Amino acid sequence: MADHPKKVELTPGIGHFYSWPLVLVTCADGQGKPNIITIAASAACSATPPTIGVAVAPARYSHGLIAASEEFGVNIPRKADLERADLCGSISGREEDKFARAGFTPLAGLVISVPVIAECPVNLECRLVHTAHLGSHDWFIGEVVSARADESVVVGDGRVDPVEVDGVFSWWGQYCSPGTPLDRWGFSQDSE
Amino acid sequence: MADHPKKVELTPGIGHFYSWPLVLVTCADGQGKPNIITIAASAACSATPPTIGVAVAPARYSHGLIAASEEFGVNIPRKADLERADLCGSISGREEDKFARAGFTPLAGLVISVPVIAECPVNLECRLVHTAHLGSHDWFIGEVVSARADESVVVGDGRVDPVEVDGVFSWWGQYCSPGTPLDRWGFSQDSE
Repeated sequence: MADHPKKVELTPGIGHFYSWPLVLVTCADGQGKPNIITIAASAACSATPPTIGVAVAPARYSHGLIAASEEFGVNIPRKADLERADLCGSISGREEDKFARAGFTPLAGLVISVPVIAECPVNLECRLVHTAHLGSHDWFIGEVVSARADESVVVGDGRVDPVEVDGVFSWWGQYCSPGTPLDRWGFSQDSE
Repeated sequence: MADHPKKVELTPGIGHFYSWPLVLVTCADGQGKPNIITIAASAACSATPPTIGVAVAPARYSHGLIAASEEFGVNIPRKADLERADLCGSISGREEDKFARAGFTPLAGLVISVPVIAECPVNLECRLVHTAHLGSHDWFIGEVVSARADESVVVGDGRVDPVEVDGVFSWWGQYCSPGTPLDRWGFSQDSE
């Protein structure tokens, strides 16, 4: 008998994945009308070039906008803005102006023609470099071509201070703030 | 003057991304010799089929193994195992047997010919369905073809209980446990 806990077989699914970084993805139509989509399936994908991936269902209004413009913004919301961040995940930009409805302010992109969200402390502008057609969702990978943050959250060497951002993420589907840091940093080098 | 905080331009990079789900990716060579690689750039990419992406640098030993076998395991470590999870990110499987060195037990895959890690409470078996060649890292996307969890962390309806797992993630580069849940769940529907 193996010396480890008994395993139970589960239905294969992404519900067993655990930590989901909540981002507000901005995009715009050909006339410059902007939209916001709330995405929790997102990740950094490569360091050089710096890329970020986001999962968007093909049927969604924002999907067509991103595919057409090949640009999107990745905005990291504060915990204090969770209510309206969540709202942007529950209504459609086809019928409503989500910036107006959620009370967010569009801030013109520095490099892309898609705005970012002024109220989000971290704003990354991305150019689409790869699309993986997977089924229920496409995985859009964008290169980070411009990055901005609120002055109040930036520390000396151009890094973002997590405590100042006071962000939020989804942990097995439930929103959480990070707890006390474990007094140690990530592994020291690229693994093999 | 706009009614929002002053923004500072930063060097574009993935260091400004914030929440990184730490996973131990398992793989194996043609002779069945297994390896473990510690990855924090990972995410669910689509719901149907259920897929998970992980970033692996092409120069790494594990990269060749995954590309050749087109299979990998995604194992979610407990906070209590952080020390040895981290160790797997700091040594190379080319020279060392990481299972032996870290004291992890390989458990044969149910569907794939790559083992999972017995000591990790959640084990997902993936078949490679897409590779995005991005530069410093390739983004490997695998379909979850089998899922298992420790009996002690599974609740009635086949879900994993986050509190029982007592997991860990990397938050702007620093390991954290999730704090108190915010008493609300993720947005109610796919956003548009």
